[in-house]
Amino acid sequence: MPTHNEALRDQACLIIHGPDQPGLVAAVTALITRHKANIVTLDQYSDNPEGGAFFQRVVFHRPELAAVFHELEADLAETLTPYGMTWKLTDQSVPKRMAILASTSDHCLLDLLWRHRRGELPVSIPMVISNHTNTAEDVRSFGIPFFHIPSQGPDKSAAEAEIVKLLAGNVDFVVLARYMQILSDDFITNVGVPVINIHHSFLPAFIGAGPYKKAKERGVKLIGATSHYVTKDLDEGPIIEQDVARVDHSMTAADMQQRGANVERAVLSRAVLWHAQDRVIRHGNHTVVF
Amino acid sequence: MPTHNEALRDQACLIIHGPDQPGLVAAVTALITRHKANIVTLDQYSDNPEGGAFFQRVVFHRPELAAVFHELEADLAETLTPYGMTWKLTDQSVPKRMAILASTSDHCLLDLLWRHRRGELPVSIPMVISNHTNTAEDVRSFGIPFFHIPSQGPDKSAAEAEIVKLLAGNVDFVVLARYMQILSDDFITNVGVPVINIHHSFLPAFIGAGPYKKAKERGVKLIGATSHYVTKDLDEGPIIEQDVARVDHSMTAADMQQRGANVERAVLSRAVLWHAQDRVIRHGNHTVVF
Amino acid sequence: MPTHNEALRDQACLIIHGPDQPGLVAAVTALITRHKANIVTLDQYSDNPEGGAFFQRVVFHRPELAAVFHELEADLAETLTPYGMTWKLTDQSVPKRMAILASTSDHCLLDLLWRHRRGELPVSIPMVISNHTNTAEDVRSFGIPFFHIPSQGPDKSAAEAEIVKLLAGNVDFVVLARYMQILSDDFITNVGVPVINIHHSFLPAFIGAGPYKKAKERGVKLIGATSHYVTKDLDEGPIIEQDVARVDHSMTAADMQQRGANVERAVLSRAVLWHAQDRVIRHGNHTVVF
Amino acid sequence: MPTHNEALRDQACLIIHGPDQPGLVAAVTALITRHKANIVTLDQYSDNPEGGAFFQRVVFHRPELAAVFHELEADLAETLTPYGMTWKLTDQSVPKRMAILASTSDHCLLDLLWRHRRGELPVSIPMVISNHTNTAEDVRSFGIPFFHIPSQGPDKSAAEAEIVKLLAGNVDFVVLARYMQILSDDFITNVGVPVINIHHSFLPAFIGAGPYKKAKERGVKLIGATSHYVTKDLDEGPIIEQDVARVDHSMTAADMQQRGANVERAVLSRAVLWHAQDRVIRHGNHTVVF
Repeated sequence: MPTHNEALRDQACLIIHGPDQPGLVAAVTALITRHKANIVTLDQYSDNPEGGAFFQRVVFHRPELAAVFHELEADLAETLTPYGMTWKLTDQSVPKRMAILASTSDHCLLDLLWRHRRGELPVSIPMVISNHTNTAEDVRSFGIPFFHIPSQGPDKSAAEAEIVKLLAGNVDFVVLARYMQILSDDFITNVGVPVINIHHSFLPAFIGAGPYKKAKERGVKLIGATSHYVTKDLDEGPIIEQDVARVDHSMTAADMQQRGANVERAVLSRAVLWHAQDRVIRHGNHTVVF
Repeated sequence: MPTHNEALRDQACLIIHGPDQPGLVAAVTALITRHKANIVTLDQYSDNPEGGAFFQRVVFHRPELAAVFHELEADLAETLTPYGMTWKLTDQSVPKRMAILASTSDHCLLDLLWRHRRGELPVSIPMVISNHTNTAEDVRSFGIPFFHIPSQGPDKSAAEAEIVKLLAGNVDFVVLARYMQILSDDFITNVGVPVINIHHSFLPAFIGAGPYKKAKERGVKLIGATSHYVTKDLDEGPIIEQDVARVDHSMTAADMQQRGANVERAVLSRAVLWHAQDRVIRHGNHTVVF
Repeated sequence: MPTHNEALRDQACLIIHGPDQPGLVAAVTALITRHKANIVTLDQYSDNPEGGAFFQRVVFHRPELAAVFHELEADLAETLTPYGMTWKLTDQSVPKRMAILASTSDHCLLDLLWRHRRGELPVSIPMVISNHTNTAEDVRSFGIPFFHIPSQGPDKSAAEAEIVKLLAGNVDFVVLARYMQILSDDFITNVGVPVINIHHSFLPAFIGAGPYKKAKERGVKLIGATSHYVTKDLDEGPIIEQDVARVDHSMTAADMQQRGANVERAVLSRAVLWHAQDRVIRHGNHTVVF
Repeated sequence: MPTHNEALRDQACLIIHGPDQPGLVAAVTALITRHKANIVTLDQYSDNPEGGAFFQRVVFHRPELAAVFHELEADLAETLTPYGMTWKLTDQSVPKRMAILASTSDHCLLDLLWRHRRGELPVSIPMVISNHTNTAEDVRSFGIPFFHIPSQGPDKSAAEAEIVKLLAGNVDFVVLARYMQILSDDFITNVGVPVINIHHSFLPAFIGAGPYKKAKERGVKLIGATSHYVTKDLDEGPIIEQDVARVDHSMTAADMQQRGANVERAVLSRAVLWHAQDRVIRHGNHTVVF
C-alpha cells in the first residue's frame, strides 16, 4: 500500500467535465459545503457559454476525509448523474501509482526517479520496465523494481502481453520515458490506464528518421519537446505540455539532440506532475490544464 | 460614454476577497444561479485552508445584464456583507477608462496606443498627459487628447494638482508609461484610482543611477522589467507581471537599454490587459493574478 | 542618398564564405592589418575542419574608410579569389535600403516603422508597398512613401512587374511584413535582392487553412513564428530567427492569433536587424547567424 | 591520468585577452597557419576600438597536436609577450579536472554527476567533498571518490586547510554545488584555481535570510539563479550565466524553492560546461562568454 502524503491529508480533488449547463458550479459547491468541507482551489472553465463543454477542478479540505469518502462519492453520483457529467473524486494524500517504460536512453527515466526521491512528484513507482538492461542497476539503486522485457522481432504481441500482465491492477498510469517501441492499438486498449509519452518536436516539423539532422540542415533556431497522452494515432494524442530550447549553427546534430534531451526531461516531468495532481482533463483531442 | 464591447455583451465579472470561510463559493454560485446567469470561468484560491485569505474571480453570462445589474449588486451586498468580504461587480462590455502619463520616452506609450487601436486592450483612453511635448503629435494621430503639464522645479504640487484635476471622475485607472517624475504620497491619495507603473529590473539589483551601466560592468546575462501597482513606497508596490530578455558582453549599455525597453513595453501591456480584465487582486503587498 | 550613421562611421563589415582552407583567417586579418584597420569583432566558424564550409564576419575600424574603400575591395578580390571565396564588404555607416510589402495586417509593418524611427534598425525605408490601402495614412505619418498596388484576379504578373519596377535599384532588401500574396518564381528572380518573410509556426505543424483553429483543437501549449529568406520553395527557405509564446486552453483561436502576432513582430524585427547588420550568412538551405 | 576525449583529438583552444592593439588577430592567425593548423572557430571582441580590451578564443585543429604543443606555446609566448597579453593554450581532448563541494542539497550535485556520466560535460571528477554525509552513497555509485570534511564551530580554518590539501595539484577548477559554507579569503587564495558558485536570484533582490518567503510576500512572478566565479566579495563575482522560471500566487514558498532548484541546476550545468570548454574569459568584474 502506498505511503500517504501527510501534507495533503484530508484533501480531495474533484474533476468534472461534460456538457455545460447553468447551475452546475452552484450544485457542486453546495454539496461540498453540506459535507462540511472547505474549498482550497477551484478552477472552472466553459469553452462556450452557449452549448459548450464544462470543465471543473476543485480541491477541498475535509477533516476525516477517509471516513466520508464513499458518502461523498454517492452524493456526487446522485447530484451529477442528472447533468450527464463525467467526474472523479480522488484523495490527494494517496499517491498515484506510476509505471515507467524505458529503453536505452536514461535522461527522462533518471530525472523522474530522482524528482520522485526528492519528493517533487506525488506518485509511487511500483516498477520500471525496459526492453534493455542498461538502466537496471541505476533503477534498483533507487529501491525500485526493474523488469526486463525484450522486444525483438516483428511480432511484439508477446512482449506487450507480458507488460500488460505486470501492469494490470498495479498502476494508475504509465509513462513512456523514451520507450522506443511502437505500441499496438491492442496494448493501448488492454493497459486500461492513461499512458503519457514524450517526443521531440520542431518548428517546422521534420517527419521520419533523423529529425535532428534535418533540423540542422534547415538551420532551425529552436528545438522542442511535446508530452501527450497516447492514443491509437501515434504521437497525435492530446498535448499536455510543450517547451523549446534555443540552438544555433555552431551546434552539431548531436549537440542539438543533447539539448533536446534536456527539454524532453523537463517537459515530461511537468506533464507527469500535472497528471499526478489531477490537473489535466482530456476532452476530444485536447486537454484543459488547470 | 465609452463604446460598449459587443463581444463581451451581458458578461459580468465578480471579484471577491477577504477572510476564507466555508461555504463562500457555494453562497456566491447559488446567487449567480438564482439570477439565471451561467458561469463562464471561475477561479478561486485560498492561501491557507485554515484561517487564510480567500480570492475569487468569476465571469458569468446573464442575458439582459444591464437590466438586472443593480439587483445583482444589492443581492451580492446582502450575501457577502455578513462574511466581511471585499467585492466588486463589473460589466465586462464597458471598457475601463485608462489615462496614460508619459515623459519623453515613447516605447511604452505608443505600444499601448497601438494595441488599443488593434482591439487588444479592453479600455478606452480619454487622455494622455505628459510633462514633455515630443509625443503630442503621435498621440493625437490616434485620436486621443494630449495634455502637456510641465513639471519643473522642486515643487511638483501645482503640476500634480493639475493632473489630479484632469483625471478626477474621468478615469478608472492610470498607467505610468515611463513617466519620469516621482509622485508624492498626496498624489497617490488624491488620484483615488489604481496607478500602474513599469520599471526595469535586474538580477542582481543595481540601485541608484545608471543601472544599465552597472549591469554591464557586472556582466549580467539577463535584464528585466517589473510592472506593479504604485504605493507610497516608491517602486515597492505589489508586482503584477515581470519578464526578462537575454543580453551578452557584445552589447553596449545602450543596446541593453534598448532591449530593456522592449521588455518594458511587453510587460506593461500584459499588466494593463490583466488589470483591465479584472484578473488582478491586490492583497497586502502582493497580487493574485487569475 | 541615405543619411549616414555617425556612430558607425569608418566601420566596415566583411563577410566571407566558401570552402574551408588553412590560412584563410590569417590571410584576411593580415590584409586588414596592412590597411591600418583595427578589428572590432571577428566571428569565424567552419562546419567541418576537414573539407567543410568556412564562414567569417569581421567588423573593423579604419579612419577615413571611405577614402580607401575601393582599394580595400581590390585587395580583397586579389586575396580571396584564389581561395574561391564569396565575400562582401560594406560600410556600416551606410544604412541598407529596406522596402516593406504589406497587406491589411499592420502589426509587423508598424513595429518596423517605429523601431526604425526610434533608431533601433540601421536601415532607411524608401517605400512601403501594399495591395490594400488601409495602412496608407499610418505609413505616411512616418514620412515614408506608400504605394498601393492591388493584386486581384488569378494573374499576378502585372502587379508583380509593377512592384519590381518600383524596387529596381532603389532597395537593398525587401521585407514581407505579412504580405498575403504568393510571389511567383519570376518575382523572386527579378527582384534581385534578398527577401525576408515571417510566418506563424506551430509544434506540431498544422498545414493548410485555419492553423490557429487546428492548433486550438489539438490543444497546443506553444505557438511560434519563423522568419526566413524567401526561395522558390514557398516558406521553406533558410531560417533566420524563430520564437514562441505560451498559450492555454482558456484562449480562443482569436486570442492565440493575437498572441501569435506579437511573436511575429518580435521575430521579424530581430531577423531584419541581423540582416541589416550583415550578421546572417546563407549557405545551402540554412543560415549562420553571427 | 584522465581519459582523453577522442572526438576532440588534436584540437587546441587558445584564449587571449589584454589591451587591444592593431594587428593582434593577424599575428595570432599567422602563427597558427605557420604551424600547419586549421582554425575551426574564432571569436574575437574588443570592448572599445580605441584603447579598449581585447578578447579572443580560437579553436584550431593540428594533426599530432601533442607533438608540437610545447613548440606552439613557446612561439605564442614570443609573439604575444610584446603585446602584453594574457593567454592560455589548452588541448581540448584533455578533460579538465573538476572537484565538487556540496552540502546536504543534492540537486546541483547529482545533475552534474549525471551529465558527466552521459558525456555532456568534458571534465573528469576526481572527488566530491561535502560537509555532510547524506550524498556519499549516491556519489560513490557513480564511481567517484567522496570525502567528508565536517565544518562545525566558528573557526573553519582547519576544515578549509583540509579541503585545500585534498584539492592541491589534483583539480583544475572547483564547483560549489550548493556548498553552504562561507569560504574565507585565504581559502580563495590558497585553492589557486577558479571556483564557480551558484545562487538563487530574484527580481527585485531580497537580501538576507528567507529569500523565497520574502519573494512570496512581494508576489514575484519570476525567480532566478546566477552562476559566477567566486571572488573575495561573496556572491559578487563575475557572472557566467543566469536564468529564470515563472512562478505564481498559487505556489508556496516551498514550491518556489523547488522550482528555483531546477533553475539552479540548469544554470550551473551551463556555467560548468562553458568553463570546461574555455569559453569564459574573466575581465574585471565581468565575463566574456564566447
